[in-house]
Amino acid sequence: MTADLHPALRPAAHLLGTWVGEGAGDYPTIEPFRYTEQITFGHVGKPFLAYAQRTAHPDTGLPMHAETGYLRVVSDASAGPVAVELVLAHPTGIAEIEEGHLDDGVLDLRTTTVGLTATAKPVRSLRRRFVLADDELTYDVWMAHADTPETHHLRATLRRQRPGG
Amino acid sequence: MTADLHPALRPAAHLLGTWVGEGAGDYPTIEPFRYTEQITFGHVGKPFLAYAQRTAHPDTGLPMHAETGYLRVVSDASAGPVAVELVLAHPTGIAEIEEGHLDDGVLDLRTTTVGLTATAKPVRSLRRRFVLADDELTYDVWMAHADTPETHHLRATLRRQRPGG
Repeated sequence: MTADLHPALRPAAHLLGTWVGEGAGDYPTIEPFRYTEQITFGHVGKPFLAYAQRTAHPDTGLPMHAETGYLRVVSDASAGPVAVELVLAHPTGIAEIEEGHLDDGVLDLRTTTVGLTATAKPVRSLRRRFVLADDELTYDVWMAHADTPETHHLRATLRRQRPGG
Repeated sequence: MTADLHPALRPAAHLLGTWVGEGAGDYPTIEPFRYTEQITFGHVGKPFLAYAQRTAHPDTGLPMHAETGYLRVVSDASAGPVAVELVLAHPTGIAEIEEGHLDDGVLDLRTTTVGLTATAKPVRSLRRRFVLADDELTYDVWMAHADTPETHHLRATLRRQRPGG
């Protein structure tokens, strides 16, 4: 895409591009697992990033999880934290809103609304922290699920593959 | 993608691919408008389709709306209607669940849960009908918004550009 970056996205511009890496998950109710991951952040000239990720089994390459949505930058600060909103669809039957802040390469988000389809797994909320330093992106995800309170679930580290736009 | 189609997706297989066409929108609170559109349906071997669409201004080509999410086929019928669930993110700050049925090329969906970010437009619900006949895909969207009850909002017709997978 060749659109000029919307000025509101300047604090988030370092996320743009394609990221590839590996992660690990665990949770009280499941066996620990590992995965490879690709994340992309793109833009079309509007004040949001298009976000998509997918994970695969590290040995077989078969698809595991995926997510797709948009990260909206909703405050226009030239310095300090900016307010962000993530609208996200999961193929497991979850459509959720997360809200938070991006501040100096650290993106903190927490579910404010979770919508579940009739057959979805009972995820109650997610909390995420992305930390961007140079060309390395690390994230942690915490999840509350059914009767399990918010518990650490995922951690991955990705490297920038190519700048995006 | 080269994965085999999941058997549950057989009733939806004719949606796979890339569709391009034109549409028109109106609503009691806005000026009528026209748009060009591209829709893609893909799969990774699991019982859902990855869905994405984007629209552009017919004269300038500038991006207008976009949506991204997943269409889950949640009943396994060899004939007759199959139950489907759409999980969808909108860059306007909306994350919604729609549920409905796919029956003989007609896909009917209606919002069951709508999540809004703090700054989103007050969309209350959407209803959609896609009709697929040969290589032509037509859809209508009805929307309830703020104080306006469910009202016809969008209609578009697209032609298949290439089969997908």
